[in-house]
Amino acid sequence: MSTTIGVFDSGFGGLTVLRELLPLVPGAHYLYLGDSARLPYGSKSQATIARYAVESARLLTARGAQHLVIACNTASALAMPEIEQAVDVPVTGVITPAVEAAEQRHANAEVLVLATAATVQSHAYRLQCGAHGLRATEKACPLLVPLVEEGWIDHLVTREVLRIYLCEALAACDPEAVLLGCTHYPLIAPVIVSALAELGCTAELIDSAKATAQAVARALPVSVGARGGEASFQCFATDSVEKFERLGSHFLGRAVGKVELVDLGG
Amino acid sequence: MSTTIGVFDSGFGGLTVLRELLPLVPGAHYLYLGDSARLPYGSKSQATIARYAVESARLLTARGAQHLVIACNTASALAMPEIEQAVDVPVTGVITPAVEAAEQRHANAEVLVLATAATVQSHAYRLQCGAHGLRATEKACPLLVPLVEEGWIDHLVTREVLRIYLCEALAACDPEAVLLGCTHYPLIAPVIVSALAELGCTAELIDSAKATAQAVARALPVSVGARGGEASFQCFATDSVEKFERLGSHFLGRAVGKVELVDLGG
Repeated sequence: MSTTIGVFDSGFGGLTVLRELLPLVPGAHYLYLGDSARLPYGSKSQATIARYAVESARLLTARGAQHLVIACNTASALAMPEIEQAVDVPVTGVITPAVEAAEQRHANAEVLVLATAATVQSHAYRLQCGAHGLRATEKACPLLVPLVEEGWIDHLVTREVLRIYLCEALAACDPEAVLLGCTHYPLIAPVIVSALAELGCTAELIDSAKATAQAVARALPVSVGARGGEASFQCFATDSVEKFERLGSHFLGRAVGKVELVDLGG
Repeated sequence: MSTTIGVFDSGFGGLTVLRELLPLVPGAHYLYLGDSARLPYGSKSQATIARYAVESARLLTARGAQHLVIACNTASALAMPEIEQAVDVPVTGVITPAVEAAEQRHANAEVLVLATAATVQSHAYRLQCGAHGLRATEKACPLLVPLVEEGWIDHLVTREVLRIYLCEALAACDPEAVLLGCTHYPLIAPVIVSALAELGCTAELIDSAKATAQAVARALPVSVGARGGEASFQCFATDSVEKFERLGSHFLGRAVGKVELVDLGG
C-alpha cells in the first residue's frame, strides 16, 4: 500500500511543487487539489483564506491523504495553524522549507524575497527569516503571475518588468540569496537569474518548490522515500478544468491528465 | 424621494461606470457592490458566475435598488438572463450599450473589441455585434488589468504590451471602432489611443462605461434624469476593503468613502 500525499494550492501554481515531488518521492500516490473556483486567495481576508484552506485540506484527507503539502504561499502564510488544527496528518507549507534552505546555505545573511502583494503584506517570509537569523527584504511583484500565465516566459516585457522590480529591490538591499516566494516563479527562474546578473547581483536563487519537496521527503518514513516505482497522481479542481488542463502541463512539466471537478460548496 | 440605482461588479473596475453615472444622473442615490471575495469572475464557470451575480443583484435590490447596472463584462456576458429573472427591476449590462454606441456611429463597420480572456471566450461581444450588423474581432488582453492595478498607466511596459496586443489584432482586422470591453480599460484609454495612432490606426475608441451610463440615463423616467442635486453613493464589498478603498479612488476619480463589508455567504 503506497503512501498518499495531498498537495493543495488555490490554482495550478502548486504543480511546480508536485513536479519536484514526483522524482524525489516516486513511490507515493499524489492527490493535487486546485481550489480554482475561489482563486486568487491573495486578495482575500485571513478569515476567508483560512476557511477555504481548511475545506481544501479536509477534502484531501477525506480522499485518503496521509501527508498534506500546502503548495500555496498565501495559505502557508496565513492559515497554517488552522489547517494543522483541522486535520490529523502532518502538514508541510512552502515558506519554512524555503527559509531553512536559505539559512543552511547563507547563515545570518541578507536575503531578498520575491512574492505576490498578498504574501508580502503578510510579512510571513520576513518573520520566518527573522526567526532563522536572516534579514529579509520583501518585494511584491504583482505582474509576474499574469506574465507567466500569459506564457511570456523569456520575453522582452517580462525581462523589462523584472529589471524594474529588481532595480527597486536592490536599491534597498544587497542579498546573498533570492527566495522565490510564489509557486509561479520557478517557471521564470532562468530569466530572474539573468536579470540579477545584468544588475551585477550574484545572489543565489532559492526555489521554494524544490526546498518544499525536499522537506516533505525528509518528513516521510524512510521506507516511503526508499520505495521506487512510478509516482501516480490525480488532479482535482473546484471550477472549470479547461484552463487547469491547458496551463497545468507547463507547471507540472508533463500532462496533468484528466482533472476531476469537485465541489467545496463555496 | 430619489431613485436608487444599484451598480454591481466583481471588483472595483465597475467604478468607472459609476464615475460616468454620477454627473449624468446626479439626482439619484447609488449603491455600488464589489463582490471582491470572489473576484475575478473571469476564470469561473458560467454556472458559478450566474450564482454569484444573482446573489449580488439580490443584495442590491434588498437594499433598495430600483434599477440595476451590471458594470461587469463577465457577468453581462454570461449571466444577464439569470439576473433579469431573479429581480423585478430593470437591468442594464455593459455590452449592449457599447455595441449600440458603436453601431450608431459606425453602422455595418468592422470593430475591434479589447477584453479579458474570459469575455473573449464567451464571444458575447461578437454575438451582440453580429446582431447589430457589425463585424467584430475580439482580442484578449490579459495583462492590461494587472498593469492598471499596478498603477503602470502611462508606462513604458504598458505601451509595449499594448503595441504587441494591438499589432496582433490589427494583423487580422482593419477596424473603424475599438470597443473597450473591460471596466479597467478606461483608465488607460489615452495610452490605447496613442498606441493605435502609432500603428497607423485611426479607429474611434468606444468606452463601454460611458455608453452604459448613457443607456441607464435613457432608461430612467425623465423626472429622474432631470432632477439636479448632488449624487450620493455608498460602496459595499464582500471582502477586505483595504485594496478597494486604496485603488477605488483611481477608478471613481474621487474618494470612495467608507466601504461597508457585506457577506454573500460564499
